[in-house]
Amino acid sequence: MAAVAASAGLAAAAFATTYNKSPFAPLACEERSASQPISSKVNRPSFVPENTIDLDDASIPMRLRMIHHIKSLQSTICTALESLEPSGQKFKSSYYLRDASKGFGDSRVLQDGETFEKAGCNISVIKSTLSPAAVRQMRAERFDWWDGKSELPYFVAGCSLVVHPRNPHAPTIHFNYRYFEIQDPNDPSGEPKAWWFGGGTDLTPSYLYEDDARAFHGLYKAACDRHDPAYYPRFKQWCDEYFYIPHRQETRGVGGIFFDDLSDRDPERIFAFVRDCSNSYLPAYYPIVERRKDQPYSEHEKRWQQLRRGRYVEFNLVYDRGTKFGLAMKEPRTESILMSLPLTSRWEYEPEVGTEEGTPEKKLLDILRKPVEWA
Amino acid sequence: MAAVAASAGLAAAAFATTYNKSPFAPLACEERSASQPISSKVNRPSFVPENTIDLDDASIPMRLRMIHHIKSLQSTICTALESLEPSGQKFKSSYYLRDASKGFGDSRVLQDGETFEKAGCNISVIKSTLSPAAVRQMRAERFDWWDGKSELPYFVAGCSLVVHPRNPHAPTIHFNYRYFEIQDPNDPSGEPKAWWFGGGTDLTPSYLYEDDARAFHGLYKAACDRHDPAYYPRFKQWCDEYFYIPHRQETRGVGGIFFDDLSDRDPERIFAFVRDCSNSYLPAYYPIVERRKDQPYSEHEKRWQQLRRGRYVEFNLVYDRGTKFGLAMKEPRTESILMSLPLTSRWEYEPEVGTEEGTPEKKLLDILRKPVEWA
Repeated sequence: MAAVAASAGLAAAAFATTYNKSPFAPLACEERSASQPISSKVNRPSFVPENTIDLDDASIPMRLRMIHHIKSLQSTICTALESLEPSGQKFKSSYYLRDASKGFGDSRVLQDGETFEKAGCNISVIKSTLSPAAVRQMRAERFDWWDGKSELPYFVAGCSLVVHPRNPHAPTIHFNYRYFEIQDPNDPSGEPKAWWFGGGTDLTPSYLYEDDARAFHGLYKAACDRHDPAYYPRFKQWCDEYFYIPHRQETRGVGGIFFDDLSDRDPERIFAFVRDCSNSYLPAYYPIVERRKDQPYSEHEKRWQQLRRGRYVEFNLVYDRGTKFGLAMKEPRTESILMSLPLTSRWEYEPEVGTEEGTPEKKLLDILRKPVEWA
Repeated sequence: MAAVAASAGLAAAAFATTYNKSPFAPLACEERSASQPISSKVNRPSFVPENTIDLDDASIPMRLRMIHHIKSLQSTICTALESLEPSGQKFKSSYYLRDASKGFGDSRVLQDGETFEKAGCNISVIKSTLSPAAVRQMRAERFDWWDGKSELPYFVAGCSLVVHPRNPHAPTIHFNYRYFEIQDPNDPSGEPKAWWFGGGTDLTPSYLYEDDARAFHGLYKAACDRHDPAYYPRFKQWCDEYFYIPHRQETRGVGGIFFDDLSDRDPERIFAFVRDCSNSYLPAYYPIVERRKDQPYSEHEKRWQQLRRGRYVEFNLVYDRGTKFGLAMKEPRTESILMSLPLTSRWEYEPEVGTEEGTPEKKLLDILRKPVEWA
C-alpha cells in the first residue's frame, strides 16, 4: 500500500492510509486532484484518463480503484468538453463532504455556454446505511444472510454526466457508472457480502442524424464485444426498456447501453469492462458535438428542442431510479441530483409540431416509438 | 327528472335519461354547453357560474349535479380569464370521450398569451374500476365490505385549473375540486358504498405581495367559515403540508386550502362548501392578476420566475398525487394531466439568486421555508 499511496499523492494517501473495510470505520475523503494535462496531437484534448495508480492491481481495494478511475474520468471529460466551448467558459467545481453519511462528491457544471446550454459531470462517493425498505427495493433475495430488519452498510462510488448542448442538432447525452458494495453489519471483517457494477451511456437527439446514432452505437458495441459478445444486445435492449416513458409511449432517446446489478463474473473483468465503456464516452460523443455545434438552426428547431427537453425532465423526475434514490436519501444533495435537468425546457398543450408525416420531428418520434438496431 | 332534463338542455337530457346507478351501466356523456353570457357591471365578466338545474335539489343524483357545477364553473372561469387577455386569445377546448374507461373530459387551454403564459382548466368525468392495488392506496380500511381482491367500480367528476401568468409579479394559481364514489360490484342497487369530496386552491407567487396573499387567504377563510369555523385552520395547514417539497425543504407557494376524503357530514352540506370554495376562485384571483399583469419587470425578475417554475414542475412530477394517479391510469390522457406544467421553465445549478439577505427573492424563500398565518 505504501507505494500506491506515494504515487497517488498526498490526498489519495490520506484515503489509503485510513482505508478500512469495517462497515463502521469512517471514510476518509480525497481532496480535489489537479486537472489532467491536455495532450493535443490532432488539436483535440486527450480522450484517455490518466491514472496515478495501476487500476489493474487487484491488491488495491476495488473501492479505491473505482474512486481513482472516476476522478480521472471526470477531469479528462471536463477538460475535453471545455475545448469545445468557444466562450472560454470552464466547468465550475463544487467539492463537498457529506454530513450524516460519510463520503464526498464533486459536482462540475458548465452552464449557459455557447456550445453547452448545461453540462454537468458528478462524482459521488457514499458510505452509509440502507434502511430495510431500501434493501427490499434492491433485489433483496440476494441478501439471504440478512435478517430483514437491520440497516445494511453500503458503499457506492459513481460518476454521472449529462450534457445538454445549445444547438438543437447536437444531441443530449447521459452516462452513469457506479460500483456498489453491501456489508453485513455483523461481520467484523468488513468484506463486502454483495457487490455489483451498474452503468450505461445513452444518446438523446432532438433531430436524428442516423450516422451519428450508428457511430455512437457502433463504438459501444465494440466496447461491449471486447468483453463479451452477449453484452451489447442485452444491454442495448435493457437501455431501450429502462428509458421508456410509459405515459408518452416513447423512449427518451435513441438508446445506447444500460446495465445494473452486474456481478456475473470476476470483479476484475467487470471493472475492466466498466472502464472501457466509460472511456468510450469521449470518442463517441465529442465528434458528434464537433460536427453539430455550429450548424445553423431556426426558431422552430429550437422550440422543438425545448419540447424534447420537457420529455427529458418528465423521465428524470417521474421514472429515473437514480433520481428517486437520490431524492429519497436522508440528506439529499438536491443540486447535484437535479443537475441532470436542462437549463430551459418547454411544455405546450397538444403542439402540432411532431404530428406531420415527412417532417424530421415526426421521424424522430417514430423511431422513439419503435427502437431501431443501430449496430 | 323530466323537468330537470328539459331545463338542462338536450345534452344534459341525454345524460340524465341514461343515468343509471348500476356500476356496470354505461355513462352517457354530455356535449359541450355554450359559454356563459358575460354580465359586465363593473366592466368585469361574471364571477358566478350560472346553472340550468337547481344544484340544491337533492332529488338529482350528486354525480349529475357535480358535473353541472364543474361545467358551468369551467365556462365562467375561462370567459373571465379571457377578459384579462389583451391579445384577444381565447381558450381552446379539446373535448374527448374516454375509451377503455367510460367518461369524458374537456381540456381548455390558453397558451402563449400576453397576460397568460399558460392557463388550463380541465373537467374530467371518469367511470371505471380501481385495481386492488389502487384501492389499497386509498385508505382501504373504510372499505370494510371489500374482499380485498376484486376491482371496485368508481366514479369521479372534477375540475382542475392551473394558471401561469407571464408577468413574474403575477402569481401562479392552482385549484382542483372533485367528487368521488366507490361502488360494491356485488350490490346491484348501484348506491355508492363510499363517497367523498376533495379539493383546494393554492397560490404560488414568484414575488411575494403580502397584501395579495392576505386578501387571497382572507377570501378562502371566509368561504370556509361560512360552513365550519374549524375548516380553514385545518385545511390551511393541510395545504402547507401537502405542497411541501422535501428535497427543497420549502413549500410550493404561499398555500391556501387543501382537503381530501371529506365525508364528515351530509353530502349536501359538503357540496355547498365545495361550490362556495370553487366559486371563490375568481373573486380571489382575478383582482390580483388585474393589478399585476402590466407591472414592469426586469430580465432578472423573469429569470427568477423561470427558476420558480422549475420548482413547480418538480412538485408536480415528483410528488403530486393527482399527477401520479393520472399517469398510472390504464390509458392516461397525458396532455390533460400534464397541462399543469408551465410553458417554460429553468434549472440552474446553484443559482446565486435567492441567497442574498434583503432581496425579494430571499424573502420569498424564507416564507416558503416557514409558512405564515395570512388570515
